[in-house]
Amino acid sequence: MTTIPVITLETIQASLTEAEILDAVKGALIAQARGEVNSPPPGMLMLSNPEGECHIKYGHLDGSDTFVIKIACGFFENPKIGLSAGSGMMLVFNAKTGVPVCILDDKGWLTNARTAAAGALAAQAGAPSAVTSVGIIGTGEQAELQATWTCKLLGIESVTVYGRTASHVKDYVERMEQNGYSVTVAPDIPTLMKSCNLVITTTPSNAALIMADDVQPGTHIVAMGTDNPGKQELDAALFPRAAVIMVDDHNQCVHHGDLGHAVRSGLVPEDADIALGAVLAGVKPGRTSDDDITIADLTGIAAEDMAVAGLVWSRQG
Amino acid sequence: MTTIPVITLETIQASLTEAEILDAVKGALIAQARGEVNSPPPGMLMLSNPEGECHIKYGHLDGSDTFVIKIACGFFENPKIGLSAGSGMMLVFNAKTGVPVCILDDKGWLTNARTAAAGALAAQAGAPSAVTSVGIIGTGEQAELQATWTCKLLGIESVTVYGRTASHVKDYVERMEQNGYSVTVAPDIPTLMKSCNLVITTTPSNAALIMADDVQPGTHIVAMGTDNPGKQELDAALFPRAAVIMVDDHNQCVHHGDLGHAVRSGLVPEDADIALGAVLAGVKPGRTSDDDITIADLTGIAAEDMAVAGLVWSRQG
Repeated sequence: MTTIPVITLETIQASLTEAEILDAVKGALIAQARGEVNSPPPGMLMLSNPEGECHIKYGHLDGSDTFVIKIACGFFENPKIGLSAGSGMMLVFNAKTGVPVCILDDKGWLTNARTAAAGALAAQAGAPSAVTSVGIIGTGEQAELQATWTCKLLGIESVTVYGRTASHVKDYVERMEQNGYSVTVAPDIPTLMKSCNLVITTTPSNAALIMADDVQPGTHIVAMGTDNPGKQELDAALFPRAAVIMVDDHNQCVHHGDLGHAVRSGLVPEDADIALGAVLAGVKPGRTSDDDITIADLTGIAAEDMAVAGLVWSRQG
Repeated sequence: MTTIPVITLETIQASLTEAEILDAVKGALIAQARGEVNSPPPGMLMLSNPEGECHIKYGHLDGSDTFVIKIACGFFENPKIGLSAGSGMMLVFNAKTGVPVCILDDKGWLTNARTAAAGALAAQAGAPSAVTSVGIIGTGEQAELQATWTCKLLGIESVTVYGRTASHVKDYVERMEQNGYSVTVAPDIPTLMKSCNLVITTTPSNAALIMADDVQPGTHIVAMGTDNPGKQELDAALFPRAAVIMVDDHNQCVHHGDLGHAVRSGLVPEDADIALGAVLAGVKPGRTSDDDITIADLTGIAAEDMAVAGLVWSRQG
């Protein structure tokens, strides 16, 4: 009896270019907006000693010959023992028989890459016409990936960062300078919001970081970190000021994204958002003027995992 | 970078005896009854061309150093192309870091085995004092496993089977006779219910198979097949006649077990059931007299998967 093949991280990384990942994730977001994705609500297991979370996203794209289950764990104390906070794998199944066809032992790399791609596409979708420095709140792995993918996509070479912990900020600056970017450190978030009109939040915060009053007209904010009901990065009061609120998935963002806090507070109606995929498809505008405040709230969707996993699998054998 | 180890079916099968699986599953059901299991509602992906379903069960037992995600697929048209209807795998993770530690490439064998063990334990928990032949409704893989595990546990050598499709019944009789059992074929379910006081249903039925009026006093029924809201094996009207209703998990059985149909019909209150684990622990009786009608409604719980996967993992290296 044959054993299921395991595709290693090295093989996965060699299978795909960044441009292909961007294309695949863009296609996934558009398919999601069109209702072509069968993806039930994600599963989430919370561990407490130490605190950690395991997210399970899964689904099937209409007509695809495979379906995908993606597991992504985040254990934020891991770096203390020299491990990456994130880990995981993707499982690809035959959609006609349910038989597993391969395991992508990506150690969370595909999740990181598709998340970075989604963030960059969301940044582009609402960016004002002139952006000089990308604002980044957070200093972790995604804070680096979001900055580099977004800068590359938009042709920007400067990043402004804010982080809570000085040593993490210092490490972040070093990594980003090694990547070839010019980095400014903001002493606090209000200062960062004064100098940046494109800001990406990528933290595990449990309380609002960007307050409504600190946001200038013409700012586009991409909120990446809020992926369960206990997390929050954006002041709920910012949402009624936004001309456009884009989401990767309406139900997920209302359930456990930043939008959810604003909806549950009664500050915006539940239908205040539009699909990021509709903007990417050119069906709806990401902003209407350079004075708009715009928000993209991303929770990460199974369709993105299915798209990148399917692409890796299609390149094998 | 190391690749995640895959433990093959042969190694898995060589790691465990049936007695150990029964012990592990009994422990899991008792832990579930005591509230010691952190297992969110299972995920389910429904495929339609052809029809198939993928169940994702996952959780963590208090104090365990691992957590487990189990994937089990059922594609009932697979036998037409020479494949087993069931397939799947289990994934074991470090509960302190979220890092995957191994993949159990069990092809669904552990799910089949833990399901058979749970059914046999549920049969024993409510069986009347004298059982001469175990009644089985269904002719698939679980119909064989439920019969053999239950007969072994209770010391019974005779099975009475009913199946819809004559050729499947014929195959079933041959397989069970090869296993050393004496098999009687019932022409219909009412006839089977007249001659059997311990009956196990293990079908993918979408409508009640056992009608309330056909059940004699003193019968214990173990309902294994109903594992999503669209399935049903027992007439909801049977539930108010039962002296004891045991469940593997209250929430799952109300949500998508046979009990759920009875609760939603208003025929029994939502608290009409007790935990099978409480019966197995000796805390509650499975029946109070040989005239009781008793029901065990099983949906399959993550704790069972965690128990058998943890046992296999503990035997490695």
